[in-house]
Amino acid sequence: MYSFSEISRELNKYIDTLDLSGDPQSLYEPIKYSLEGGGKRLRPMLTILACNIFSENPYSALPAAAAIEVFHNFTLLHDDIMDNAAVRRGKPSVFNKWGQNSAILSGDAMVICAYKLLYQTPTEYLASVLSCFNYMALAVCEGQQYDMEFESRDDVTIEEYIAMIDKKTAALVVGATMIGAITGGAEKHNCQKLLTFATEFGLAFQIQDDLLDAYGTEEQLGKRIGGDIVENKKTFLTITALQKADKAKKKEILDLLADKQMANEEKISRMIAIYDELDIKTLTENEINTRFDKALAALDSIDVAAERLEPMKDVARSLLNRKR
Amino acid sequence: MYSFSEISRELNKYIDTLDLSGDPQSLYEPIKYSLEGGGKRLRPMLTILACNIFSENPYSALPAAAAIEVFHNFTLLHDDIMDNAAVRRGKPSVFNKWGQNSAILSGDAMVICAYKLLYQTPTEYLASVLSCFNYMALAVCEGQQYDMEFESRDDVTIEEYIAMIDKKTAALVVGATMIGAITGGAEKHNCQKLLTFATEFGLAFQIQDDLLDAYGTEEQLGKRIGGDIVENKKTFLTITALQKADKAKKKEILDLLADKQMANEEKISRMIAIYDELDIKTLTENEINTRFDKALAALDSIDVAAERLEPMKDVARSLLNRKR
Repeated sequence: MYSFSEISRELNKYIDTLDLSGDPQSLYEPIKYSLEGGGKRLRPMLTILACNIFSENPYSALPAAAAIEVFHNFTLLHDDIMDNAAVRRGKPSVFNKWGQNSAILSGDAMVICAYKLLYQTPTEYLASVLSCFNYMALAVCEGQQYDMEFESRDDVTIEEYIAMIDKKTAALVVGATMIGAITGGAEKHNCQKLLTFATEFGLAFQIQDDLLDAYGTEEQLGKRIGGDIVENKKTFLTITALQKADKAKKKEILDLLADKQMANEEKISRMIAIYDELDIKTLTENEINTRFDKALAALDSIDVAAERLEPMKDVARSLLNRKR
Repeated sequence: MYSFSEISRELNKYIDTLDLSGDPQSLYEPIKYSLEGGGKRLRPMLTILACNIFSENPYSALPAAAAIEVFHNFTLLHDDIMDNAAVRRGKPSVFNKWGQNSAILSGDAMVICAYKLLYQTPTEYLASVLSCFNYMALAVCEGQQYDMEFESRDDVTIEEYIAMIDKKTAALVVGATMIGAITGGAEKHNCQKLLTFATEFGLAFQIQDDLLDAYGTEEQLGKRIGGDIVENKKTFLTITALQKADKAKKKEILDLLADKQMANEEKISRMIAIYDELDIKTLTENEINTRFDKALAALDSIDVAAERLEPMKDVARSLLNRKR
């Protein structure tokens, strides 16, 4: 079993020295740029950490972990086109730096690079890993489509929202974790518990992302605050606000969402004022905490020596800024 | 061994009844639409025909053949965004009908659907098929990037052009054929010959496509004549014309290519007049014929009973409008 910092070092070394070069360079440069973008590398970390719970050789999952990270960055490249996003992790997005066509095509190449990496999984686990990856990847596309559709809808329920982020965000967290568990040779009953952990953790993680968009700092978020509000994204905060508001307040929110003339800064500060009024921050924090507790309980119920779970707990806690 | 028409019937039935549905429908509808678009289904046909040369059960390659067709249609969805193309196979392109974001996202989902289909390949051949598919898919992206770069260059040589279409078009023809051969259990020396066949045939096929853009009918092409000329595409015709032209004529061609004011119809007819003057049609036809003859010679050298090669020859001939 390896510690979090040992794993982190190995994983970063592996991803930083991945050979994703080729001709024409103009196709591969945006790929390199996006992988060097300073992301948290949460998802590939989950892969190795999950493998580490069950196996003495967690690094056999390194190629699959890298595949997950490459796939995740591909989704960001294409999402940034669809969201018209100029900044990603504090730097110009690929879309902004190289243009739309490059972002489309380099993104496409990244999906294939991900499958090439996946292919290096130990043969005995390859079929299960591929099957899990395909399921995950399609779910991510479905989630993104729901997310775009929700932008033009005002009647999205919390249940619909949770189903959307379950695909758009949690599926990748779940896929990353399960692929690690499979490669670690985890038994079925333990996989089931890890699935619950990853699902609840993935949902909590997305809801925290929603929260940071309104109440975080640019540094925490890696992009400008209020982007979701400007883009009319249906987030946990918006939907909860609409649910809690009385008739007059609901109209105020809907008018604000529909207003295409208002300056971005004003729109953001007015929406946050409404959130404050309705105590949305506390409600959102409660939701995150509830889900995180469920996630931890599922993790604790896995049938291995308790210490094997510590590195996974450390990373989950640190990502949700939780002390314990 | 099955005949061309038997195989064609089975293949169409398989692709037409593929279950590519799911939620949200808005993600899967463009996928269905693009597969029903009435394409020639040349590439999956090559997969089954190649398998049919070596195996009594060519239909074991049906899932891989469908994967090739789904992947091919994915490239069209994304190419149409990059080329700003409103029409595909005589119908509105997905990009035109559902918008850019849908075309990006449904295209992404198609790549994953292709890998899901591939996964149904008989286990003994899966690793080789996946490896071949990955190689092919990345080559297609590289070729598309070169093609885009060539649009803003006036000094593209014939060698560079051939290297570009070798990736952009021939790689998919080669991949489709080789995946069929692998699934049919072909031996290495026969694979090598089939590779030469598919490469030369793929190149001839693309050069014919270039020819049809200037000298074909809209019915043959499935889109408006002269699209390559309007888009400043570097085709076999343009590059050969630049090569054959004297200094004055070369300037005329370059001025025409650079002119962004001229009406499309005029630009097309003036370029075709130059082609006529330089006898580009004949030169292009000669190139197609030379490559096709090389392709057939390689096919004939495959070490099987001659009759097993007939269905493959039939389809190659019919696609290049050749009697023998």
